[in-house]
Amino acid sequence: MLEELKQQVLEANKDLPKYGLVTFTWGNVSGFDKDSGLMVIKPSGVDYDELKANDLVVLDLDGNIVEGELNPSSDTPTHRLLYQKFSGIGGVVHTHSPWATSWSQAGKGIPALGTTQADYFYGEIPCTRRMTEQEVTGEYEWETGKVIAETFENINPLQVPGVLVHSHAPFSWGKDPYEAIHNAVVLEEVAKMALHTYQINPNIRDMDSFLLDKHYLRKHGANAYYGQDKK
Amino acid sequence: MLEELKQQVLEANKDLPKYGLVTFTWGNVSGFDKDSGLMVIKPSGVDYDELKANDLVVLDLDGNIVEGELNPSSDTPTHRLLYQKFSGIGGVVHTHSPWATSWSQAGKGIPALGTTQADYFYGEIPCTRRMTEQEVTGEYEWETGKVIAETFENINPLQVPGVLVHSHAPFSWGKDPYEAIHNAVVLEEVAKMALHTYQINPNIRDMDSFLLDKHYLRKHGANAYYGQDKK
Amino acid sequence: MLEELKQQVLEANKDLPKYGLVTFTWGNVSGFDKDSGLMVIKPSGVDYDELKANDLVVLDLDGNIVEGELNPSSDTPTHRLLYQKFSGIGGVVHTHSPWATSWSQAGKGIPALGTTQADYFYGEIPCTRRMTEQEVTGEYEWETGKVIAETFENINPLQVPGVLVHSHAPFSWGKDPYEAIHNAVVLEEVAKMALHTYQINPNIRDMDSFLLDKHYLRKHGANAYYGQDKK
Amino acid sequence: MLEELKQQVLEANKDLPKYGLVTFTWGNVSGFDKDSGLMVIKPSGVDYDELKANDLVVLDLDGNIVEGELNPSSDTPTHRLLYQKFSGIGGVVHTHSPWATSWSQAGKGIPALGTTQADYFYGEIPCTRRMTEQEVTGEYEWETGKVIAETFENINPLQVPGVLVHSHAPFSWGKDPYEAIHNAVVLEEVAKMALHTYQINPNIRDMDSFLLDKHYLRKHGANAYYGQDKK
Repeated sequence: MLEELKQQVLEANKDLPKYGLVTFTWGNVSGFDKDSGLMVIKPSGVDYDELKANDLVVLDLDGNIVEGELNPSSDTPTHRLLYQKFSGIGGVVHTHSPWATSWSQAGKGIPALGTTQADYFYGEIPCTRRMTEQEVTGEYEWETGKVIAETFENINPLQVPGVLVHSHAPFSWGKDPYEAIHNAVVLEEVAKMALHTYQINPNIRDMDSFLLDKHYLRKHGANAYYGQDKK
Repeated sequence: MLEELKQQVLEANKDLPKYGLVTFTWGNVSGFDKDSGLMVIKPSGVDYDELKANDLVVLDLDGNIVEGELNPSSDTPTHRLLYQKFSGIGGVVHTHSPWATSWSQAGKGIPALGTTQADYFYGEIPCTRRMTEQEVTGEYEWETGKVIAETFENINPLQVPGVLVHSHAPFSWGKDPYEAIHNAVVLEEVAKMALHTYQINPNIRDMDSFLLDKHYLRKHGANAYYGQDKK
Repeated sequence: MLEELKQQVLEANKDLPKYGLVTFTWGNVSGFDKDSGLMVIKPSGVDYDELKANDLVVLDLDGNIVEGELNPSSDTPTHRLLYQKFSGIGGVVHTHSPWATSWSQAGKGIPALGTTQADYFYGEIPCTRRMTEQEVTGEYEWETGKVIAETFENINPLQVPGVLVHSHAPFSWGKDPYEAIHNAVVLEEVAKMALHTYQINPNIRDMDSFLLDKHYLRKHGANAYYGQDKK
Repeated sequence: MLEELKQQVLEANKDLPKYGLVTFTWGNVSGFDKDSGLMVIKPSGVDYDELKANDLVVLDLDGNIVEGELNPSSDTPTHRLLYQKFSGIGGVVHTHSPWATSWSQAGKGIPALGTTQADYFYGEIPCTRRMTEQEVTGEYEWETGKVIAETFENINPLQVPGVLVHSHAPFSWGKDPYEAIHNAVVLEEVAKMALHTYQINPNIRDMDSFLLDKHYLRKHGANAYYGQDKK
């Protein structure tokens, strides 16, 4: 079942080490099939180069395992919640990529400082608040999803496809697993450049909003004109 | 037509990932043929490893497509303007290479701090002013070229073959596409070293002008003596 | 003798360059066999790619060579002392990995700033005090072990499997040579991210203790639920 | 002639890109044969992967070319002077390796902060003074050698086998070309770690002199005990 989605999730998981986003097994990718309401996710603690399509776990969004013999990623409840709350996304990525994780640990969102970010993120990439003791000692991974959703109360997750979880690490998403990986790579790159930007000029202010509009909208939406065939 | 130039532009585009200058398709190289007045440029959004000579787009400097079935790079108007204004250049490179982009985002030029820069750039590598709302919402990519040209009003672009566009990223150029790539690599390297230099010694002043002269001129101009056969 | 342990120690030593933890021969791995009370260690100054199982040196914890024709690593006495004092460990790694070494040179422990560290280290990774002249001019490598043990007087080395030696470099350990290497990689990664975290936000406080508990304990101990089969 | 030395110089030059010490052709290695009083050096501007033993240039220490059809490295006079002044060295390396070059540009020596440096350099790695206009506009490369020699008036170059030239880049040396390369790698590594050390703890003082003694002397001199067969 869901063989095409499994293939996408498999490839996207193998892309994690390829793009330098993970050390050991510190990352996972899932995909969501809107028609069936099912998601496919990496099993917990399995090496990327040993991963096979058959190892992937299929679940519904309530967490019931529909197919698969291995334990799903321990972060599965976070992925489930994001698919429930962020209508229109079809892939979620979690990594501990070092630059984005440094911003997460610092508890700071990544401001929009240049066109690299504006090409993919329509503004700042936010950082969640610290989670409470009750949240952490409760259904932790589910609560992680909830604090992410709370952070996007006034932000469109389709326009800002990533977040930093405080004291933890980034999540990103997209219309499918590939786009979610793509956004994870961008997030890591802009996290690195943002720190260096402030080190060069601590007083730099954000990019102008009209430049943010220009770059985001030339790649997204009805009037996009980047590439050969625009979504 | 322009088969030799196409081959150069093709190779130079493939050099972008080889030298670590690009993530995904965040960069493009063009070449200019003085005799015909035509330029060759990468198509928009195509992966470097899938790129073929036939995919390249041939245009005149007014932007009329002379050959090619794909959309040219969205940055084509910037390239066109540079060929119009900077007489003598035959190749232009645009990347989002991370160190140079950090300086662009910081809105600061890279001062001449040592001989590595002096071997290729005869002084500071300037950063443009911020573009105005009118420029950004107008013919944006063409206006980007204009603000670069404005930045070089009192600088010889043949002696300072690169620029940082504010809140955006670097452009570089040279007598042909290879030299433009070469200068893009140098720009990235000196951008990295300049930040670290200031971190080691925030009070360091620029290199002495006579040392800048010495290094630039031992590699360029009538009395150059570096290498085996000097241009 | 100890062929299986030799194989583990051999592979773990070859993992040092694979994981980017060493320049030249700046690192060594040993393994300890509880039953026989013997340890196996890399010979001094031998390149990793030329290393063979037969080159490894077998010693008892008093330093008597039981097998092997080459000189053991000059750091052998430090390894011996750690096996004597830290009951339950079966592998020790020493490297000069650059980020962890920078913290060692700075004389500062790495605070627990996020879940990446919490997944492996149950709190701060401590830095030893400076060694005294008497210690350095005496049985230096043995005294190095002693100052490490002193640093862990009130810390459980099984829960914090690594240390920074002041003005020197890191040591890490684990239940076997592979786990010791694993912890060396984690130590290097969190050392890098901790510096960047402080550069982004110099005022950040440590992660909440309940989040530290959550992450450490979901991977370690009786109630762990990460991966497929927990130790 | 000098076939063995040529082979060493050839291999050492090819080691420059292998160890990540050079971009393009920004580095050169030479070797010196004490018996004949001749040196062998890389030709100027030739790529390392195209370099052949026959391309190398043989000169005497007065700069007379004894063999070779290509122009020797433009830095040849600096190498010559170092062989004249630093008795006992048999190899010289010049690079623009980025971390060491950043210290050069900052005009600061690299203090002895830890055992990594102490294993190879018996103290601070000094930076020269700025060169004067007269020196730069005169016999520049020869004067570069002179200002290096001046910097070592009270330092034993056999114990501190490297230097940073102000506003320029590092030189290193050793008993033969391989050891000179080895020291260039160490210099780059300690340059990187020294900056990060100060970023972690701006107030850190140098390592204790007795620890410097211990590490330098356990690898060098009569009582060395590191490795399998000590020089």
